Amino acid sequence: MHAIVIEDKKLVSREVPDAEAGDGEVVIDVTAAGVNRADVAQRQGFYPPPPGASPYPGLECAGVISAVGPGVTDRHVGERVSALLSGGGYAERVAVPVGQLLPVPAGLSLIESAALPEVACTVWSNVVDRDRLRKGRTLLVHGGGSGIGTFAIQLGKALGASVIATARSGKHEALRALGADRLIDYTTDDFVTATREFNGQGADVILDIVGAKYLSRNIEALAPNGRISVIGMQGGRKAELDLGLLMAKRGSVSSTSLRARPAGDKARIVAAVARDVWPLVEAGAVKPVIQTTIPLAQAAEAHELMESSDHLGKILLTP
Amino acid sequence: MHAIVIEDKKLVSREVPDAEAGDGEVVIDVTAAGVNRADVAQRQGFYPPPPGASPYPGLECAGVISAVGPGVTDRHVGERVSALLSGGGYAERVAVPVGQLLPVPAGLSLIESAALPEVACTVWSNVVDRDRLRKGRTLLVHGGGSGIGTFAIQLGKALGASVIATARSGKHEALRALGADRLIDYTTDDFVTATREFNGQGADVILDIVGAKYLSRNIEALAPNGRISVIGMQGGRKAELDLGLLMAKRGSVSSTSLRARPAGDKARIVAAVARDVWPLVEAGAVKPVIQTTIPLAQAAEAHELMESSDHLGKILLTP
Repeated sequence: MHAIVIEDKKLVSREVPDAEAGDGEVVIDVTAAGVNRADVAQRQGFYPPPPGASPYPGLECAGVISAVGPGVTDRHVGERVSALLSGGGYAERVAVPVGQLLPVPAGLSLIESAALPEVACTVWSNVVDRDRLRKGRTLLVHGGGSGIGTFAIQLGKALGASVIATARSGKHEALRALGADRLIDYTTDDFVTATREFNGQGADVILDIVGAKYLSRNIEALAPNGRISVIGMQGGRKAELDLGLLMAKRGSVSSTSLRARPAGDKARIVAAVARDVWPLVEAGAVKPVIQTTIPLAQAAEAHELMESSDHLGKILLTP
Repeated sequence: MHAIVIEDKKLVSREVPDAEAGDGEVVIDVTAAGVNRADVAQRQGFYPPPPGASPYPGLECAGVISAVGPGVTDRHVGERVSALLSGGGYAERVAVPVGQLLPVPAGLSLIESAALPEVACTVWSNVVDRDRLRKGRTLLVHGGGSGIGTFAIQLGKALGASVIATARSGKHEALRALGADRLIDYTTDDFVTATREFNGQGADVILDIVGAKYLSRNIEALAPNGRISVIGMQGGRKAELDLGLLMAKRGSVSSTSLRARPAGDKARIVAAVARDVWPLVEAGAVKPVIQTTIPLAQAAEAHELMESSDHLGKILLTP
């Protein structure tokens, strides 16, 4: 099969051995694969695949099951699915444990459904499961225009939370249409001041992709009992933490990556997303936001677009 | 009434206006009051009382209700109670909202019950409620010989967790008798190595009173998905946080103080402690550990003893 592999920090198309379904796995013929910031970090050498994962990039896809491995009884060839992957989505075929399969939400095309697994599982596991975003609370989303950001804005609103997002001003109109209550242009405005002024006390949950550069300001922007979730470190990984300030907010700082979680954790998250998030997608309250679809062989262009940060929502690849 | 007040960073006994029961409050005639590390910090000027709280130190007590304020229907004069306070325990009488009253656990004397409210509410709210210590998980307790430490060791074991504690070696035998599975003399041994060796992966929950000096080592000692709760900063408040290391553990760092929480939060915690922890006390699985009882007028001696860290468990004051 053809796959995109990483050679000298570049994406190149190569003929590789076909994906095979191991115990408890299926093979998906990929219709579309999502591009994530983590793939860029992997290409640059900062984010190696976890042990046992495919060495090729690609953390989510949608397609049609073409093979079923030993021990799999409830899946069949020809079934349309989307999936959270540990890698290998940038390919014609990919093997995935059945616990990471998701239905294609009613009303969505197969291609559209490829835009959801990684963002839905990342946002749900951090913002809802651990950080307890609920109706009436306030969520601050950094990088509101990203795939994660556009999803988090919609999910926050669908849950009844208020949502503040940072993004360049050119993206504000689109993010307002997704439901964001307050938009902050981080190149000109201070998000701490704007967040505090929004509701008089700050954000209950902050979803952050910047890391070190924002750590102390994120704590300042927290409401009492607030929680910060760091899922990206575009602004560095080491920063001074003032525990006294954190205590004054009774706050917490967490950091996770979805890819490194063991299969059992992923299956638990996927099941919860199917149960709690997919109905919101099927009701139209949360929509996939897709900037563009690019042929798999031109994956390098997709990374250039992602690194430019000029996109809004997801970039998809089609084999 | 007599109370201990803070003058020039010293504790002195003074005649002060009598405590009065406001709306939704009762007055307790104090039989015994617990001494906490936070009282020492308050005396030294590092931990001012939150708005509306008594300016006198003392975060917990037990005694007999001597007056009932407007709106209180379910409490009566003569009732024996223990209580979580926002301050003012170092006195003959103290006013407290009814939501912060706890029963005197069956089998305990009134004096013994004064040793429990602050440690029980602090340990439960951090370690059980937020950090989800459960059967089969591993808890690392720093300062195992303190009031908080001796309580956390016992509560962890009563919940079915494994418990590791750091303490000077002179306290190890007593802490082993409380149930600690592994003791670490922090003056001679590295707690990171010892914690990882204990179960091969590290601690699921760390209860820390040291702060900055232990932050990076605490992260190293975490198991995947582990949580650090910083409730004291005897080792400073500012430290470098490596978010990359935190992400590799999928870890979190929280910091809280109980005293600053609003009354509604305190009432919720107190109710949960009465429901979930008091039965363990009444069953004898968690016992108050009391180093000594000192007359209230000699409160300064109690602080000297606490600052020496030579005590094991709680120090109580009796008016």
